Amino acid sequence: MEKDTNAQLKEYRNSIDNIDAALVFLLSERFKITQKVGIFKVENTLPPVDKSREAEQVARLRNLALGAGLDPDFTEQFLNFIVTKVVLNHEKIRDGS
Amino acid sequence: MEKDTNAQLKEYRNSIDNIDAALVFLLSERFKITQKVGIFKVENTLPPVDKSREAEQVARLRNLALGAGLDPDFTEQFLNFIVTKVVLNHEKIRDGS
Repeated sequence: MEKDTNAQLKEYRNSIDNIDAALVFLLSERFKITQKVGIFKVENTLPPVDKSREAEQVARLRNLALGAGLDPDFTEQFLNFIVTKVVLNHEKIRDGS
Repeated sequence: MEKDTNAQLKEYRNSIDNIDAALVFLLSERFKITQKVGIFKVENTLPPVDKSREAEQVARLRNLALGAGLDPDFTEQFLNFIVTKVVLNHEKIRDGS
């Protein structure tokens, strides 16, 4: 019985690990693009933040989350978490560091 | 020129939107599994937190991040961000709410 419990837990954890790897690789691709956007905005003297774009992203992701059975508030926090890092990276680009 | 700038920015944003949708769908699948883990742990009177498992996850994801060109510290913060939500969900399961 102990062995069955361990086997089941291991199966769950293997799937979580696979998903986490996919998340890491996707995040890496996302930051590659936002890095390009940061350079592009500096080169074209575009404002670093676009509030209407951000509002669209939030609304779209909350809607996708609802359809996927994911907590929309968590999804919005998740986007904010990533965008905070993007803004930090863009500040580095603007400062030339 | 204005049009070219807008077209380029739109292309970047389309890719970001596609990746964000993929992230939302993957996160939904991840929470489906951790929800099962939460129920499974209650049913099998397993402790809610497993520090050695968490340490393994952090080490593995930091390593994957390095290989993918993603900031390992950010990746660890990202995992913590998700795990915080998982713990909240597991507390709800234990409280029967």
